[in-house]
Amino acid sequence: MDVKQVYSLVKEGLVGVEENFKTLAADKSGAFPELHKMLEHILCGGGKVVRPLLALHSGSLYKYQHEKLVYMASASELMHIATLVHDDAIDKANVRRGRATINSIWGVDRAIIFGDYLFAKAAQFAVATGSLRVVGLFAETLEAISHGELRQGFSAYQINQTFDDYLERITGKTAALFALATEGGAVLGEASEENIQSMRDYGINLGISFQIVDDILDFTASEKELGKPVASDLIQGTMTLPSMMLLERFPGDNPVRRIFNQEGDSRENVKEAIDLLNGSDIIEDCYKMASEYSEKARRNLDNMPDTKNREALTALADFVVKRNK
Amino acid sequence: MDVKQVYSLVKEGLVGVEENFKTLAADKSGAFPELHKMLEHILCGGGKVVRPLLALHSGSLYKYQHEKLVYMASASELMHIATLVHDDAIDKANVRRGRATINSIWGVDRAIIFGDYLFAKAAQFAVATGSLRVVGLFAETLEAISHGELRQGFSAYQINQTFDDYLERITGKTAALFALATEGGAVLGEASEENIQSMRDYGINLGISFQIVDDILDFTASEKELGKPVASDLIQGTMTLPSMMLLERFPGDNPVRRIFNQEGDSRENVKEAIDLLNGSDIIEDCYKMASEYSEKARRNLDNMPDTKNREALTALADFVVKRNK
Repeated sequence: MDVKQVYSLVKEGLVGVEENFKTLAADKSGAFPELHKMLEHILCGGGKVVRPLLALHSGSLYKYQHEKLVYMASASELMHIATLVHDDAIDKANVRRGRATINSIWGVDRAIIFGDYLFAKAAQFAVATGSLRVVGLFAETLEAISHGELRQGFSAYQINQTFDDYLERITGKTAALFALATEGGAVLGEASEENIQSMRDYGINLGISFQIVDDILDFTASEKELGKPVASDLIQGTMTLPSMMLLERFPGDNPVRRIFNQEGDSRENVKEAIDLLNGSDIIEDCYKMASEYSEKARRNLDNMPDTKNREALTALADFVVKRNK
Repeated sequence: MDVKQVYSLVKEGLVGVEENFKTLAADKSGAFPELHKMLEHILCGGGKVVRPLLALHSGSLYKYQHEKLVYMASASELMHIATLVHDDAIDKANVRRGRATINSIWGVDRAIIFGDYLFAKAAQFAVATGSLRVVGLFAETLEAISHGELRQGFSAYQINQTFDDYLERITGKTAALFALATEGGAVLGEASEENIQSMRDYGINLGISFQIVDDILDFTASEKELGKPVASDLIQGTMTLPSMMLLERFPGDNPVRRIFNQEGDSRENVKEAIDLLNGSDIIEDCYKMASEYSEKARRNLDNMPDTKNREALTALADFVVKRNK
């Protein structure tokens, strides 16, 4: 199945999410002009909508409940957007997905409160699923995400990090929300507890694979493809798999070590790190690791109902590794 | 009924809230040392616990469900604390309730994410009430709070604000969360829809009265009593009732106008504004307005079951006006 089909198969649901967002951005009850501009800016900019895709396909494997699933998909995307608004405010990032960030237009202070506003709206979508269990998953996921982000903040510029630290961080940062989408979909579809657990595992493994590839692309893609500066994680002192492998394989003087010790010119260090990566097997080895998690995700689908939606979820596991942006 | 009795009457519930917070701060599952320090700092600092008081007394008017009510009370206090963490990060405040703020110790970036973490934990307490309706109230309240804060941000240093603007802002900022506590308590107590609505109105009116008094104390109390600098709202360009009345009654040159136009020395302007207030009837008139809302709140209790808890809620309506910190 190609990517286009993965999207078209749940088109009705994706249109539903878009409509929920449009309604939210257009809601004039008590809102003021600036808030509308912020909502339109953040909700009508497109994006890969990976989390809604996951929720819709997972839910469609079982008892299909259109309206509830669309709320679930909307809530997962909106919570994702809210966390990005806060991340960008903290990183003082100017560009995301090729568009100006909320903080770059309206300032950090308003970005903080606007992020809170989006959490509130995401929570309302979650409540609209009618499932207290699903709402509980949302709350636990926000805990995992903020826990992961805090940990990332406290470990910034710390050079002695293990692969387990990295795995734990990206599980919180990315995989937890993927798992929410897939587990939540299965819960709403009234799947068996065993299948719900497998769908959760699928989301975790897929999310880890996705984030490893993100961390690779941060070095190998162009600024235009990334929609943000190249190697921005490294510049901010965030340890990712490629940086970790560079430190391991070049134990002496090393541009990553210099950046973490805040020595020398940052741009030159980044350029040198990219050259070192290109001259080694590191990128290939990172991709191998991403593929292993993607393969685990595929295996989590083994006992799922054999439908087009399962095919789509299998295709997504390939796609997250093969994508170039 | 005196204040001491208001507290002692729901002592069991307040101890339950304290235990929930202690358990949260001590939870070692996956948490790291810095997170523990942040939790201990923010959860074990005391405070007036007005929102838990309101939730516990409101819920106790009807069918008393101890465990659920304690979760409700914990959630309302924790959501309040989370919003304060973000407010202080935005205001770059150093002190709150006489204690160092999270941002002053750990920096603004971590305060943002830590606030998100607290929202997640508050949501988990809300889910633990077992009532989807209550969780929905929490989500709507966070919307009202962040909406009010955004509005406050966008109207900072704007001099042409009406009393209705002020009322709307303080309803979002303070009264919405009071109303959540009282309405949520009534919902968990399985009160009639009419009583639930009255308890909501009680919370709104009490919250407005409480915030008007807060805005008076911001000018009349000492830095020690406030636990933060005097007139900090005015300095930040936030319009409150006393400033609004000063502008109205002294239409010519005026220290408030100068601060809003960012003219002259800020300290001298503040001093002059306080002298003007002391030489006028403004503070008295502000207190009259606070008393009107407090009286409305008392009347909202007219049809409630005639119990000690109702007496306590009546006493609270007096207390919010009479307090001096």
